[in-house]
Amino acid sequence: MTELVDRPAGRKQRPAARATTARAAADARPAVDVAGLGEQLLGKWAETRRQARDLAARPELHKIEGLTHTEHRARVSGQLKYLVENEAVHRAFPESLGGSDDHGGNIAGFEELVVADPSLQIKAGVQWGLFGSAVMHLGTAEHHAKWLPGIMSLEIPGCFAMTETGHGSDVASIATTATYDPATEEFVVHTPFRAAWKDYIGNAAIDGLGAVVFAQLVTRGVNHGVHAFYVDLRDPDTREFLPGIGGEDDGIKGGLNGIDNGRLHFTNVRIPRTNLLNRYGNVDADGTYSSPIASPGRRFFTMLGTLVQGRVSLDGAAVAASKVALKAAIQYATERRQFNASSHTEEEVLLDYQRHQKRLFTRLATTYAAGFAHEQLLQKFDDVFSGAHDTDEDRQDLETLAAALKPLSTWHALDTLQECREACGGAGFLIENRFASLRADLDVYATFEGDNTVLLQLVAKRLLADYAKEFRSVDFGVLARYVVGQATGAAIHRTGLRQVAQFVADTGSVQKAAIALRDEESQRALLTDRVQAIVAEAATALKGTGRMSQEKGAALFNRHQNELIDAAQAHAELLQWEAFTEALRDVKDPGTRTVLTWLRDLFGLSLIEKNLSWYLMNGRLSMQRGRTVGEYINRLLVKIRPHAVDLVDAFGYGEDHVRAAIATGAEKERQDHARAYLRAQRASGQAPVDEKVLLARTAGHRN
Amino acid sequence: MTELVDRPAGRKQRPAARATTARAAADARPAVDVAGLGEQLLGKWAETRRQARDLAARPELHKIEGLTHTEHRARVSGQLKYLVENEAVHRAFPESLGGSDDHGGNIAGFEELVVADPSLQIKAGVQWGLFGSAVMHLGTAEHHAKWLPGIMSLEIPGCFAMTETGHGSDVASIATTATYDPATEEFVVHTPFRAAWKDYIGNAAIDGLGAVVFAQLVTRGVNHGVHAFYVDLRDPDTREFLPGIGGEDDGIKGGLNGIDNGRLHFTNVRIPRTNLLNRYGNVDADGTYSSPIASPGRRFFTMLGTLVQGRVSLDGAAVAASKVALKAAIQYATERRQFNASSHTEEEVLLDYQRHQKRLFTRLATTYAAGFAHEQLLQKFDDVFSGAHDTDEDRQDLETLAAALKPLSTWHALDTLQECREACGGAGFLIENRFASLRADLDVYATFEGDNTVLLQLVAKRLLADYAKEFRSVDFGVLARYVVGQATGAAIHRTGLRQVAQFVADTGSVQKAAIALRDEESQRALLTDRVQAIVAEAATALKGTGRMSQEKGAALFNRHQNELIDAAQAHAELLQWEAFTEALRDVKDPGTRTVLTWLRDLFGLSLIEKNLSWYLMNGRLSMQRGRTVGEYINRLLVKIRPHAVDLVDAFGYGEDHVRAAIATGAEKERQDHARAYLRAQRASGQAPVDEKVLLARTAGHRN
Repeated sequence: MTELVDRPAGRKQRPAARATTARAAADARPAVDVAGLGEQLLGKWAETRRQARDLAARPELHKIEGLTHTEHRARVSGQLKYLVENEAVHRAFPESLGGSDDHGGNIAGFEELVVADPSLQIKAGVQWGLFGSAVMHLGTAEHHAKWLPGIMSLEIPGCFAMTETGHGSDVASIATTATYDPATEEFVVHTPFRAAWKDYIGNAAIDGLGAVVFAQLVTRGVNHGVHAFYVDLRDPDTREFLPGIGGEDDGIKGGLNGIDNGRLHFTNVRIPRTNLLNRYGNVDADGTYSSPIASPGRRFFTMLGTLVQGRVSLDGAAVAASKVALKAAIQYATERRQFNASSHTEEEVLLDYQRHQKRLFTRLATTYAAGFAHEQLLQKFDDVFSGAHDTDEDRQDLETLAAALKPLSTWHALDTLQECREACGGAGFLIENRFASLRADLDVYATFEGDNTVLLQLVAKRLLADYAKEFRSVDFGVLARYVVGQATGAAIHRTGLRQVAQFVADTGSVQKAAIALRDEESQRALLTDRVQAIVAEAATALKGTGRMSQEKGAALFNRHQNELIDAAQAHAELLQWEAFTEALRDVKDPGTRTVLTWLRDLFGLSLIEKNLSWYLMNGRLSMQRGRTVGEYINRLLVKIRPHAVDLVDAFGYGEDHVRAAIATGAEKERQDHARAYLRAQRASGQAPVDEKVLLARTAGHRN
Repeated sequence: MTELVDRPAGRKQRPAARATTARAAADARPAVDVAGLGEQLLGKWAETRRQARDLAARPELHKIEGLTHTEHRARVSGQLKYLVENEAVHRAFPESLGGSDDHGGNIAGFEELVVADPSLQIKAGVQWGLFGSAVMHLGTAEHHAKWLPGIMSLEIPGCFAMTETGHGSDVASIATTATYDPATEEFVVHTPFRAAWKDYIGNAAIDGLGAVVFAQLVTRGVNHGVHAFYVDLRDPDTREFLPGIGGEDDGIKGGLNGIDNGRLHFTNVRIPRTNLLNRYGNVDADGTYSSPIASPGRRFFTMLGTLVQGRVSLDGAAVAASKVALKAAIQYATERRQFNASSHTEEEVLLDYQRHQKRLFTRLATTYAAGFAHEQLLQKFDDVFSGAHDTDEDRQDLETLAAALKPLSTWHALDTLQECREACGGAGFLIENRFASLRADLDVYATFEGDNTVLLQLVAKRLLADYAKEFRSVDFGVLARYVVGQATGAAIHRTGLRQVAQFVADTGSVQKAAIALRDEESQRALLTDRVQAIVAEAATALKGTGRMSQEKGAALFNRHQNELIDAAQAHAELLQWEAFTEALRDVKDPGTRTVLTWLRDLFGLSLIEKNLSWYLMNGRLSMQRGRTVGEYINRLLVKIRPHAVDLVDAFGYGEDHVRAAIATGAEKERQDHARAYLRAQRASGQAPVDEKVLLARTAGHRN
């Protein structure tokens, strides 16, 4: 342990320098190539991320703590203009309008803004990622020409008015209506009751001049389902609501107070027929409805597909916030000393305590996994939105992948921010160290753009559907034999989404062979098998729901809701683990690969430890082997310890991004000063004698 | 499930009324006596709690959201005067000075203030619970006469200046010194370096005129350890720091921004010799040190013993906050509807979803357990501080009990507030619904008044010490036989602290007999056995550390830190479970007892589920039995569902305490309105036809 403590925590003594010393040679400890790893972590859109980080480092964009929500809103509104001026937010828009048709890069750059101020990020997301995107993806050329320039330039700040007080995750059931009146060739947008008010809508309380309003399209007595309509909200000069439109301010929130969320309602508001964003559904002058997508279900799914970029970007932003928090907490833990357990005069640095290592390193490992998984998600997103791979199946896979990863990463960010805050004690609670501020702002990431619990249920339904497709007529016994008959390590990937039916579950080999748990194939087999088995079990339990009454089917489904959500979570964790494992292949430097492999193992074994009871009860691990999981995790913590600072430095966030007083080296300075003072005092012979020492001496004399 | 939905969630249809109907008789479902249970939950200091709740219901004391920290501080300072005027904060002080020598009642009343504004609570805690208490408990008659009246009346707002930037949990190592100068009969209070600045000190930034400063007492070249000194900080007229004293504002924090936390430093500040609070240690005019407690270790422990009331009250306040959150979230979940899974026209209320039940009911069960455990802790505290049972052993037991319970309840409160916030979706994030506000304020409860992780280590050390006392010379094999030889269900209590050496662990009976997991004795045996076994295992692993070098011993200890903290947590959970079980005996009403027993079972089984891998790996549960745990939990959720509102209503918090817009019935009104509108529309024949229905009809015609 002493050896670890003695190693400078800073960056000055680089591995290359150490390798030349005899001691380092004797160590033969692997070293992390921080720069190389950092480049890999930046991913495909490295250049865009760098540009966005340069921007996010500027004080103009930083959150000022302690503002009232009114002041904070005004500041963020101004910052949005700064983003426009600095060409930070138009990447996804068409080249013809000054954008660059770069969907993946747009999200990559957007994500990085979270480190400046999450309010800024989300308000930008509302304006360009939701409002602008809806016009772009749901509207047609005329709409683009008419509104996109103003949206891009911020001349038209606007809203994405989908959620209602009474309906959040269940968008299909929103109650606002847009009824076509052929007499005037207008749609009548109407809010039938209080629960149908649009709610939690960014830009609605103050700034929004326009809105894309989602409503049930009714024409000729038929409800064609949810469609998007462009509605002017306020007079651009007076900033007053237009006739028939009203609203309320949502007021102060748990975080993100730089955004003016609010409520909107419409009383028979008439808009031109052509304000229907009609790419996927049109109403002719005479009221005839038509759509390129015949199935109302598929049409709804397609229109809502634009929402996926919100989930993708929250996934990335959550990872970025976790990285910043871990950089600060781990740096501090290498400087801060507390309790002199192992010597009378020197206190331990926090990061040498086993518990502290477990608290921070398990979350570091998960952050790496979530980061690699996010990069895959972003590439998938770009493939679909660039049109490179844009089949229905691609879109469904993208939806499922985003629905799987966003819940895990957003919950992980909250957990990490809180653990880092606690790991820094009272200092962690000071707003100057940012954990509490970021945590408050990111809180809502867990429920907006799709409630995490609801998203995981979507994933579970997809898993069940995939399962049913493969095994529609096969009973459980046959399936079990089929699964066991598969070869270990077969290709189990398809388009980023892990197909449950293809899961390899060679449980026999796991149990029999004495493969160590650190073995990649063992981890994969265990993680994969668990997903497969829970899904198979749930599918069996739910068999026949199709033949039941709706009520009975729903009740049966509800009795298995917990398992289904567990299955979805296990599936998402496996995706993260696979992404981490795939990323290892791209690591060229052997030392870096060794250390990252330990980190991947820590991630995998932490997942197995979390669900150890399942592995034991289902005969996937013996009791003896189960007992080794915790021990092996503890050994990994010790191995990772010397590389912890390198691993957070590789995230590439500088002081202007981290902006935490405790991560500036100030603590090291204080500790060094204190230790120097006490050493000098001891050396001078002027230090007071401790009463305990005196008593011990006296007792000695007496004996 | 329909039956459950149909039952009115409100309070109007009381069990008594229902019993007369034939349907209710057929149900034979137990009913909760809400009023009776509420009375039991109020506990021994029911009257004081009622008074405090009356006060906490007044708008004058409520937190106003959105104030700047400066405004919030000013408001809370004013509220402290209101507390004085309303005689809310003097219960613990001597009758001779206008108090009532009521220690338990004082804490009970104090805890309830959290529902008004946690800043108000903690600022009051700083003034009277820490600053005033230190003068009272560490000072002597002269000090009481001189300072207590001004402290009680708030004429002297003051600080409890213990923590330093460099030393939080490790109080023994603080570096501020108070060196006695016999020439002037003064102590010289001095801050030797930056890390020794007092930090995070309430009242230090603005309001504090005086302080109890903790410093190493040095006289005649000997350091007698940490003692408390009364130091005037600011000129009462100018409010400027006195010469030699300086400080800084800690600024904005993650919460509790109504308190002016700050830093203090002292440059050779001279105070009269008699400012030493000398109950446990005195310095004569000539510099001779004397103490009624010979051992410096015991003396330090005794002086710090006054801190325990902070931990006790945080435990209670955390429970209170959890209750308020659950009342709001559970009420809302019986009104809010989302997704029409079981019928085409009616949506489900959230609380009928299995996952929602699991999220909220497991936390409800834990809240009951933590509440009952807190009541035991408070009684123990009152026993010690009233002098009724005030031996050294009593004080140690109290310390250990508080160190065990405070971490669990404060973490639980954060977890519950967050889960409730997420369970209410976007509405949960609005500050008007208070989850986010309470969570931000309670965040620091996890690390102040003793960092939770450090406190659990204290508990672990006590468990090891108790263990060693009983089995000093017995090897592990002998111990195992001894443990197994104990009779099940023997009295295992002593003074509220569960003595690990007396733990009953009849593991044989658990494995062999087919006792259902809902059986009280089975739960007790499983929970008890786990604590005992982990402690025994750790003790064995740590054997011989006494004979090692300090460094080696510390390293060995560190390698078992995770297990030791797990043991302490398991111990604390067992204490909560026992408190819940004991409370069941006091429940007279059979229906209430039945429902509460389900809730206790849910708590016990959730603990077993959480640690299921341990029970399996250590042969305490068979795989078959292990698989039944989750199923049984799901069955309990369904049983508890109809009583959920009663169980939160029994907490006794009214609308003026809960103050959450979503818990006012507004959601039910919205939902009822929406459903009535849609029903009327369907009945009128004017409802638009759904395109899907139309397509199905057309397809039908074609066939």
